[in-house]
Amino acid sequence: MSRLEDVLGSIEPVSTSAVAAALERQAQLTKPRGSLGRLEDLGVRLCGMYAACPPPPAEPAAVVVFAADHGVHAQGVSPWPQEVTAQMVANFLAGGAAINVLARRAGAQVRVVDVGVAGEVPAASGLVAAKVRSGTADLSVEPAMSVAEARQALEVGIEQADALVDEGVRLLVAGDMGIANTTASAALVSVFTGREPTEVTGRGTGIDDPTLARKTEVVAGALALHRPSPAEPLAALAAVGGLEHAAIAGFLLGAAARRTPVIVDGVIACAAALVARALAPEAVGYFIAGHRSTEPGATVALDHLELEPLIELDLRLGEGSGAALAVPLVQSAAAVLREMATFDSAGVTDKG
Amino acid sequence: MSRLEDVLGSIEPVSTSAVAAALERQAQLTKPRGSLGRLEDLGVRLCGMYAACPPPPAEPAAVVVFAADHGVHAQGVSPWPQEVTAQMVANFLAGGAAINVLARRAGAQVRVVDVGVAGEVPAASGLVAAKVRSGTADLSVEPAMSVAEARQALEVGIEQADALVDEGVRLLVAGDMGIANTTASAALVSVFTGREPTEVTGRGTGIDDPTLARKTEVVAGALALHRPSPAEPLAALAAVGGLEHAAIAGFLLGAAARRTPVIVDGVIACAAALVARALAPEAVGYFIAGHRSTEPGATVALDHLELEPLIELDLRLGEGSGAALAVPLVQSAAAVLREMATFDSAGVTDKG
Repeated sequence: MSRLEDVLGSIEPVSTSAVAAALERQAQLTKPRGSLGRLEDLGVRLCGMYAACPPPPAEPAAVVVFAADHGVHAQGVSPWPQEVTAQMVANFLAGGAAINVLARRAGAQVRVVDVGVAGEVPAASGLVAAKVRSGTADLSVEPAMSVAEARQALEVGIEQADALVDEGVRLLVAGDMGIANTTASAALVSVFTGREPTEVTGRGTGIDDPTLARKTEVVAGALALHRPSPAEPLAALAAVGGLEHAAIAGFLLGAAARRTPVIVDGVIACAAALVARALAPEAVGYFIAGHRSTEPGATVALDHLELEPLIELDLRLGEGSGAALAVPLVQSAAAVLREMATFDSAGVTDKG
Repeated sequence: MSRLEDVLGSIEPVSTSAVAAALERQAQLTKPRGSLGRLEDLGVRLCGMYAACPPPPAEPAAVVVFAADHGVHAQGVSPWPQEVTAQMVANFLAGGAAINVLARRAGAQVRVVDVGVAGEVPAASGLVAAKVRSGTADLSVEPAMSVAEARQALEVGIEQADALVDEGVRLLVAGDMGIANTTASAALVSVFTGREPTEVTGRGTGIDDPTLARKTEVVAGALALHRPSPAEPLAALAAVGGLEHAAIAGFLLGAAARRTPVIVDGVIACAAALVARALAPEAVGYFIAGHRSTEPGATVALDHLELEPLIELDLRLGEGSGAALAVPLVQSAAAVLREMATFDSAGVTDKG
């Protein structure tokens, strides 16, 4: 049995008994019932994931940025040159990108994985060299990668989740870097939700109307060419996905297999989450939506996953930035259940 | 000249030159322009407040919880007994309340100010004893307090802001505790926004339909009795406000006078912010809306203040809890401008 099948087989549903205990505990803490709103719901979910009430502290946290390039860039779907992927990887490793700043603020380490950057990425501290291939093929003319390559990239993500949980990390954050990756994301979201390319293709980091029209055509053309089916998730991922999508899907599955909450970022991670769900529906119980990207495909995917994002600040950067901003909220939700006094212990009168 | 007039006279508009510099800097950082959405806008606002670009780190942060009781509690507007105010003050001082947990997670100290709790509050570390009177009078039958008392409570808040900024605090958070204080909040919001009591009176920590109807009647009756005018903010505050509302209004004004951002919490702090704005319109430039409370008056007040909240998680607890959750977001917004690399410094190609 391969590593992927092994992980898929080991994902268990979240613990209903821990959820029940958490609901009871929330009602005993010194606050009017339900007054912490969705922070209470999140705390309850965390107990289900960790199978413990109160939950362990949701720290330390770690962000993994999976970087890869996209052959579809040749179709003019992005105003950024492809070499920006490698340049931004260098920026991540030097600590100067948004994700570095936001992760530092959240007390989370950042790991960068080259799962498919075009060209050489020099070895550096903090870099995991796990290139499956040097960027995908152009999905508008041929499958982006083979099924074997998609599987290999998935297993890169699984390995990362596993290694971090082994190191004691208790909260994972999925990040991405890859010029043109919102194009592949739109294709994946369309496949797994059944929505039209026009409904799920967006402006990415910022493109004009003609480029958006072209990008939407490219997505529609790729779907017409490959006819990917949600019933064959690996084949669909290989046909129209990206190497970072595959790795993130594996990362999410790996987190779920280890009963570790994982925060999903924008449309790239949401698209990967759809792949992960198609492979193992119970895995979604371990996913937390960090924020609502302005990219339309993100909202379509979140609705399909039945996840409500914690933050809505109109971000559209990727890198894991929106998910990193949500880390303190997740840790606060756990801390409420761990640290608040009860009506009894504090001698506060409960209205009953 | 009194302390209050002194502070009102010293509040300056936010710095337009620092705002301009911040907009320029945001465009140079290694991210697509505008891709951090409202986090970028917040960073720009912080520069205006601190009159510096990049801004100083928005830390350390401090939460001040102003606690007081309300004579209108006698009208049956809350299911909680009045002694819960004092019990919760003890809980804050023992570190077991939600605000303690959330402030700890955010790295913020918590200070508790007795500005008008009914009865004795035993001295304790972390408690500021500044009782103006032992709870307000019942605003449904007489003015809640005298104008002199309202002014005294305002000055308690000013003193707290001043003392914390003197200690080096760079980000302030306004919190509240006071059983029945959403009733006074609804009255204040109605006065300063011109909206009907039915539009601004809510369920507070959770009341049933008959109690909500009674509470709305009490608010309407108080407005009919006192006819408070937004043109006379101190008189309006004295007639239908609370001692913690007055203190928070002073705290907000004190923060603005010291060019220090202050995060406003739910409907109590929002009502106080309306009072502060009526006294010094420029002060609003220093206010940050932490979250959107489920209390309808909070949204009415935020609209009137033209503030968009950072978090919407359906909280309705008070204590400063929603504002404390926003602390990491504010600090992240400042850190982006302080710590991110520029396209030039990182050698990343800008799409131009």
